[in-house]
Parts: sequence; C-alpha cells; structure tokens
Amino acid sequence: MQYWSKLVPALTWLRGYSRANFVNDSLAAVIVTIMLIPQSLAYALLAGLPAEMGLYASIFPLVAYALFGSSRTLSVGPVAVASLMTASAIGSVTATGEVDYATAATMLAFLGGLMLVTLGLFRFGFVANFLSHPVVSGFITASGVIIGLGQMGPLVGVSLQGDNLISLVIALRDQLPQAHVLTAVIGFCCLVFLLLARFAFPKLLKLMGLGPRAINLAVRAAPVLMMIVIIPISMAEDFAALQVPIVGAVPSGLPEFSSPLLNWDLISELAMPAFLIALIGFVESVSVGKTLGAKKRERINANQELVGLGAANTAAALSGGFPVTGGFSRSAVNFDAGADTQMASIFTAVGIGLATLFLTPILYFLPKAALAATIIVAVLSIIDWKIIRQAYRFSSADFLAVTLTIVITLVAGVELGVLIGVAVSLGLYLYQTSKPHFAIVGQVGASEHYRNIERHEVTTYPEILSIRIDESLYFANASYLEEIVFDQISRKPQLSDVILMCPAVNIVDMSALDALNEINERLRDLDIKLHLSEVKGPVMDTLNRSDFFERLTGEIFLSHHVAVSELRARMTLG
Amino acid sequence: MQYWSKLVPALTWLRGYSRANFVNDSLAAVIVTIMLIPQSLAYALLAGLPAEMGLYASIFPLVAYALFGSSRTLSVGPVAVASLMTASAIGSVTATGEVDYATAATMLAFLGGLMLVTLGLFRFGFVANFLSHPVVSGFITASGVIIGLGQMGPLVGVSLQGDNLISLVIALRDQLPQAHVLTAVIGFCCLVFLLLARFAFPKLLKLMGLGPRAINLAVRAAPVLMMIVIIPISMAEDFAALQVPIVGAVPSGLPEFSSPLLNWDLISELAMPAFLIALIGFVESVSVGKTLGAKKRERINANQELVGLGAANTAAALSGGFPVTGGFSRSAVNFDAGADTQMASIFTAVGIGLATLFLTPILYFLPKAALAATIIVAVLSIIDWKIIRQAYRFSSADFLAVTLTIVITLVAGVELGVLIGVAVSLGLYLYQTSKPHFAIVGQVGASEHYRNIERHEVTTYPEILSIRIDESLYFANASYLEEIVFDQISRKPQLSDVILMCPAVNIVDMSALDALNEINERLRDLDIKLHLSEVKGPVMDTLNRSDFFERLTGEIFLSHHVAVSELRARMTLG
Repeated sequence: MQYWSKLVPALTWLRGYSRANFVNDSLAAVIVTIMLIPQSLAYALLAGLPAEMGLYASIFPLVAYALFGSSRTLSVGPVAVASLMTASAIGSVTATGEVDYATAATMLAFLGGLMLVTLGLFRFGFVANFLSHPVVSGFITASGVIIGLGQMGPLVGVSLQGDNLISLVIALRDQLPQAHVLTAVIGFCCLVFLLLARFAFPKLLKLMGLGPRAINLAVRAAPVLMMIVIIPISMAEDFAALQVPIVGAVPSGLPEFSSPLLNWDLISELAMPAFLIALIGFVESVSVGKTLGAKKRERINANQELVGLGAANTAAALSGGFPVTGGFSRSAVNFDAGADTQMASIFTAVGIGLATLFLTPILYFLPKAALAATIIVAVLSIIDWKIIRQAYRFSSADFLAVTLTIVITLVAGVELGVLIGVAVSLGLYLYQTSKPHFAIVGQVGASEHYRNIERHEVTTYPEILSIRIDESLYFANASYLEEIVFDQISRKPQLSDVILMCPAVNIVDMSALDALNEINERLRDLDIKLHLSEVKGPVMDTLNRSDFFERLTGEIFLSHHVAVSELRARMTLG
Repeated sequence: MQYWSKLVPALTWLRGYSRANFVNDSLAAVIVTIMLIPQSLAYALLAGLPAEMGLYASIFPLVAYALFGSSRTLSVGPVAVASLMTASAIGSVTATGEVDYATAATMLAFLGGLMLVTLGLFRFGFVANFLSHPVVSGFITASGVIIGLGQMGPLVGVSLQGDNLISLVIALRDQLPQAHVLTAVIGFCCLVFLLLARFAFPKLLKLMGLGPRAINLAVRAAPVLMMIVIIPISMAEDFAALQVPIVGAVPSGLPEFSSPLLNWDLISELAMPAFLIALIGFVESVSVGKTLGAKKRERINANQELVGLGAANTAAALSGGFPVTGGFSRSAVNFDAGADTQMASIFTAVGIGLATLFLTPILYFLPKAALAATIIVAVLSIIDWKIIRQAYRFSSADFLAVTLTIVITLVAGVELGVLIGVAVSLGLYLYQTSKPHFAIVGQVGASEHYRNIERHEVTTYPEILSIRIDESLYFANASYLEEIVFDQISRKPQLSDVILMCPAVNIVDMSALDALNEINERLRDLDIKLHLSEVKGPVMDTLNRSDFFERLTGEIFLSHHVAVSELRARMTLG
C-alpha cells in the first residue's frame, strides 16, 4: 500500500474521501467546467487545431493527472504558452504537407508525455532547475506578447501567419485592409466587455459587498457570460451568412482512443520542441502547484509531478488532444471554488465530456472573434514587464538573461528563445565562476573572524598573506587561481607564508589540483610555504585521494585564526 | 615603447641582445633545424598533405611567433594532434571534390589564426579554461592512439582511410594482405631503431658518461640519423623502382605568398574544426610554454600567447602551410640546446628555408615508411593512460570526463571527442552545483568556529538550526535549497531560529532570491525566524539591491558565532 500510494497519490486522498469532500468537489467542478469550455476551444484554435481538440484535451488528461499528480488542486489542460509553442512546432513540420496538424500535435503530446514520465521515474526532475526564473518569466512574457498580437487577426476576421513579432507585424500590416467589419465590431465588443469584467467589475462588485473569492469567480465567469449573450445573437442574425468566421461544425461525441503514428522522421523532428513544451509546462505547473500548495501547507513533489503531467500528456495524445499542463487561471478557479481533492478534476472531466456530447450544436454559432478576445485578455495576466526592471536592479547577469530571452523569443520564435535563454544563463554562471571573487583577509578586531581588508578594519602581517578564494576550484578557474596568487605575491617582498582560506571552496577537481601543486612548487622555489585553512570535509576527502598533502610545503589548519596564530607564534620563536 | 613592446614582446629581448645570446641561439637553431626536417615532412603526410607543406609551415610561422609570442623558448610548427585534426577536418570537406586538400588546410590555418588573434586582442583567453585537464589529456591520448594506428598503414606500404579506431581497424584488416614486403621490412627496421634510440640508448649513453641534456639531444637526433642511413640506401637500391613508396618530387624553392580562397561555404564548414584545432593547439602550447617557463622563471601571458599563435597560423596560411602550434618535443630540444630567445626560431626558419631550397632533391628518396616510424615513436610520448587511473582515484566527475573523452574520440573522431568532452565536464560541474553539499553545523569546543556535526564534536541547541550551504545559490539549486531547509525543519519541533551560514555562497541570483524569500515567508508562518551569517561582501551588495532585507524576519550577522551567542542570550532573557 505504501508503495502504491507513492506511485498513485490519488490512493492517499481516496481513502479518507468524505461526503463533505464530495459536495465541495462537485461544486468546484461545475464552476471549472463552465469556465473551461470557452478556454479549451480558444486554446485549440490558438494552437492552430480544430476546436474539438481543446475539449478532448480537457477530459482524459484531467483523469490521468488526478491519479498520478501530487497537487490536490492543480487543474491541467490546454494553456496559452504551450498552445503557442505547439502552433510553432507543428507549423514547421506540416509545411511539407506529409502530416496534418492534428497528427503532429498529438505526437507532440505523446513524446512530451513519455519524456516527462521517464524523467520522473528516473528522478531527473532537477533538469527543470536549469530553467532560471528570469528566463522563464522573460519567455512567458514574450510569448504573451506574440499570442496577443497574433490574436489581433482573428479578432478582426483575418488570419495571421507567423510565430514571431516581426512576421506578425508584417502580416498584420498586409492583412488589416482585408479586415471584416462586422467581425471586428463583434471582436472589439467582446474585448471591451472582457476588459471591463477584468478591470472595472471587481471594484463594482466589491462596492456591492461581495468577498474577494466570489469576485474572483465572477470575473472568471465573464467569458461564459459573453458566450451566453453572443451565441443567440449569432444564431438569430445568422452571422455565418454574413461571412463572420464562426467555430462551425464540431464533431459531437467523446474522443476515440488511438495510438499515435509511429513515423521516425516526425519523431526526430518533434523531439526537441516536445521536450521544450514539456519542460516549460512542467516548470509553469510546479510554480502554480507551489503557490496553491503554500496556502494549504501542501508540498509539491517535483518527480511525482513529472509523472503526473507525463501521464496527462500521454492521455491527451491517446485521446486526440494536444500538449497540456497545469494552468494558473484554471487552477486558481478550482481552488477558489473550494475543491478539496483531484476528484474535482475527475468531475470536471465528466462535465467537459457531457459538453462534448451535447453542447457542440450550440457552440457551432460561436464567433471566432469572441474566442480571440478571450485569449487576448487572458494573456494580459502573463505579461510581466516588471521582471526586466527587477533584474536590472538586481544583477547584470539576470538582466542579460531576461532581456536576451525576451528579445530572442520575440524576434526568432519560442524554441530559439528558450534555448538561448538557458544557454545564456548557464554561460553567465560559468563565466562568473571562471573569474571568481577573492579577498585578501585580515583579523577583525580581537575576534577569531577574518574578513576582506577592503571592507573591514582588520589586522594583517607582512610575512603572512591570507587569500580567501570565493569559489569552488575547477578547470574553468584553475589558471586564474595561479594568476591571483602570483600577482599578490609579487607585491609582498617579506612573505614567508601564504594561507589559502577555503571556506567557499566546495569542489576541487583535477585541473585545480594541478594548479595547486604548481603553486605549491613555485612558492617552494621562492622559499614561501603554502598552507590551507578551513578546508571543507568533502574537499579534504578529495585531496586525500591524491598526493597533494605529501607534496604540500605547509599545513592544513581547521580555522584561519589557528593558522595565523600558529604561524605568528613560530616566527616569534624562530 | 611601453605600448609597442607589449604588443610585440620581441622588442623586449631584442634590446639587450648580446653576442653570447647570438652564439647560443645559432647553435640551438642548427640542432632544431636538423630535428625538424623529418618531423615537418612526417606531420604534413599525417595531415594528408604534400610533404613540402610541412616545410612551409616551419618557416614563416616561426618568424611570426618570434615577434608576437610571449615565450622565449617555445618552438611552433606542425604537431601530431593538430595534424590529425587537420586530416579529419579536410577529409570531410574535400569529399565533395570542390576544393583540394591544400586549399582546405590553408583555410583551416587562416581561420584558426584570425580566431586566435581576435580572442587575444579582446582578452578572451579565458575560453581555453573550459578545456579541463582530464578532457585535454584524454583527448591527446586518444588522438595518439588513432595516429599511431593510422601510421601502421604507411609503415607497411598501404594507405589507411579513417579517423577513428573502428574504421582504422577495419581498414587495417582489409589492407594488411596487400602490404608491400620490402616497405614493411624498411618500416620495421626504422621503427626498431627509433624505439631502441628512445628506450635503450639513453641508458647506454648514460653509462658512457653523457649528461642528461646531451642524452636528450642525441635521442632527439635519432630520426635524422635514420634518414642519413636510409636515403643513400634508397638511392643505391632504387627503392622507387621496387614499388617502395617514397616522398618523391618536392618542389624546391621557398613558399609563395598567396591570399586564401574566400569561399563562404568552405569557411562555414571549416569554422568549427578551425576553432577546435586553434583552441587545442593553444592549450597544448600554453602548457608547454608554462613547463619551460617555470625553469627560467618566465611568465606566460595567455592573451599574448593567443596573439602569437594566431600570427603564426596566419603566416602559415599566407605561405602555403597548415595549422601550427607550440610542440613539446621541438620546444624541449630548443630549450635543451640552449636557446636564449626567439632569435633561435628565426635562425631555425632560415635553416628550414635553406633545406627547402637545397635538400629537396635528396629528400626525394626518403621512404614514407621511415616517416611513419618517426610518427609512431613520437606519439608514444603523448599517450598517457595514467590519467585514467589518477582520475579514477580522484573523483568520479573527472573519471567520467576523461573516459568519455577518450571513448568518444576513439569511436567517433576528434571533433566530436573534444566537443563532448567539454560538454560533459561542464555538465558534471553544473550537476554538482545543482545538488550542493550542505552541513548542519555546531560550535567546535569553546572556539568561535562552527563545523559539520557529522565530522566534528560540536555543541548545538534544539531552538537553533545552523545550516551551512556549500555552494553559490543560483537557479540550478534554488529549489534544492528549499528542500534542504524544510526537510531539516521537519526534524526539529522546538525550533525558533534558522541561521543560514553563507561563507561559501559567492553568488545569489534572482531565482535564489525568490527561493530565499519563499523560505523566509514559509518560516514566518511557522513562527520561525530566518537569519543569515557570514554573508560575503559582494553577496550583501546584491541582496541590498532587492527588498530582501526589508522582508527578512531575522537578522544578518557578521560571524556565525555572534549569531548563535546573541540568539542564545535573547532566549535566556526572554
């Protein structure tokens, strides 16, 4: 049982499932279902797919996550950024015409799902750590801009090709004259309504005495309200006959299970985008899960989360969907609506299933411009320009990472944006560690504490040079270490002892060992002894496996204070 | 003058150039010239090029390095590993038949030269630091194996295609039956002679009372002695008529200056191999320069060295040569023969120039098998299997880096070998920093020193948790930090204060700042205060640029001892 509930976290909460849980979860499911219908359709269209695939992606993936995911309130399904990435990835593989959009999108979900499950089972969740906060924020912001701009097309009744800022701006300039006036009027009405719902209604509802939770739910219901108004109008005025693009025929009925097409060319072309979509989705999802989890004192297990999301994507692939992940707005609604467990998601899946069976004749009349307006308002909340200013203030490395990610994503598209963002942030970290900070240290007052001579009032001695190296010693900075030491030595003619203070040295590799041996030997030629102080346990263990200590002219001291005191005492004696 | 002698280090030693220097340098030049003639021919053939290109690469490049290089005794020219890499790179671009070997090789030298000069002028010498010691050693060892095996072909009169172990073994199996008996006999005689010269003669000469320097020079002269014996035999017995492959017609006369072909396809194909050859050459050269420099108390300036080697390669390209670098054996001979300055290299260039003018009719008769024997014996000294055992003992990361580099180089060729070696060593470093070591610390005796509770006898208190994080806090380990802290907290029910001891934290980036803020807030919910101690100056500066200190529930202490003492004192009062 212990083992099974580790693999299938659902077993834990299923055991104590009460009638109260049931009531809470069902209520939450009704609210989430209503909210998800327009969202699912909209993101399917954003991904360049038939509307029904959005509904399919909101049924079985929810059940799979409910069983294997580690968060109790996270709600998975199609989200904006993953849909944009899907559109970008399948746009390039379907250019040849050999596979259709739907097949490619299903394959993306399948590959991403397998990768996530594999990473989770092998406890490789740490790979997601290499997506730094500035890179992810910058990437999501830039994606939001691209999505918002791209939806300006459907909003006015034209279609815009392009997955970057430049091609979208050009397409918009070329296509705008062909805009369909009635469509544009509908689109802007919807947009204005949704913007009011987001930015003006909350204050109004607050004046009316509603609590923050109720206000939140009411705001999230705005797109549904919009649908309830617009669909009857569309039916009555026959928008379709007036050339207003509408959702049109959506096959009714549940998705059929099918195995994905095993085409190796397709797989090798989609592997990289699938990995990136899966990874970005995972990072987004964990961040949402953590935010919600903090409110309920619930811990998110990264490796279990990989398995849960992987299962959800695999389920999406097998049931005609496309890549899914944990979305912020849907999860927040689920949470605010009072969901206790993932049973809410299972009920939601049932709800969306019923909608797929019975609502499609009505959804037929929904203008696509209304869905475009929904997306535009939704992405406003993921665009976060503040991160640039924060990063600018904080450090030049973070600033460079965030701006480069944003610029490359906007100019060259999502895939290159993420890859270059990750490469830049890793490169900057490595560059920083290759030229580490170091300090010449002295004794602070009469304490046993030694600090930088440039920042504190300290005592030093002309015979003893104390250098604190503020970095692990490894191949990238091994030769720099030599430079530091010999540069400092040349300024101290009376020197008899050099102490390397190593509290910040966490790793010593073979290249650094060579450098240390060389320093030791060259100092010996100059009649100067080399000592080390405050060497960490793991580093001592490593050095013990070489002949370094036999060759060392000086000693190893537990604390820097002991080192300086002993060397001083010997000099007085000598 | 200051400025010029920085750019052209030759000006420094030219100023005080004495008659004694002249005598020493001329003598060394004669010895090096004699040794270089067979070596230059052999490495040109190894690179798959006409023999005369080896001579050309040993004239003007030496002069260019003499002017711009920072070592006084380094001797540049064709070397084994760079020649193998050249063969591998030009083999793939000339497969299409559009450009010939010589053009491609010249372009490699040209591109590499420009890259090195650019790196040097922009002080980008640090890029070479990313080639770790195990990667370079492993790569050179594997290259030595490939070179030695490849030369088994010419040694017995067949030609072996292939730049990796597998293709060479297959080629050897297929070709061996076609071996030419007389060639094989000549080849093996030369090989045995050279092996004896290397491994037996030194002891013999020592018994005869020669000093180590003289022995060294005598051993290095063995290939020339071999030539002096074999060429007259080849002439007398007319080896050519007996189908023994000989060097053949070498155009006599100095190389003509020519500008390299500016073909963009060729440039883009050769850019990566040119970069790798240049970088590996640079690392080899700096290592040789440092070894020799240590004996003369001479410092090697990495950036100046880039300019010097870049100039040498550019000169090679303009005068019909191929990639060159500082070689260990030739530099050692130069040093042992008593060279004082780079004037010795200029004299050597004159010597090789004279040989190119007048010796080519004699070199005509030299059997290629003799040159193959020279190469085989030469690469024995660069093969270093010990590095594997050392790395195995020292650390698993270094061991993995060295073995992977060797295996990939042997199996997939030189280019991939280097690239994967670098990627693996960087990846392992990043992986280590993403799961940093941490320690719960306590007070050592009555000292002010705090160490790991698992390694030392220390005092701790149930209300205070002291965690020392042994790594910079950045995006790759930010979430791991949270895990560590909350995992530790769950074991300490009486906790009121957590102190993060930060002497090893050299960088805090935005992702880590987020993690620290989250830890701070979650601890606040649990009524536990978060403090930091021993935060380094640069990290304090960074944190000061955020709102971290305003949000922090606890304090920052200069030393961990002060932190624990103060918190304890307050508890007693409280």
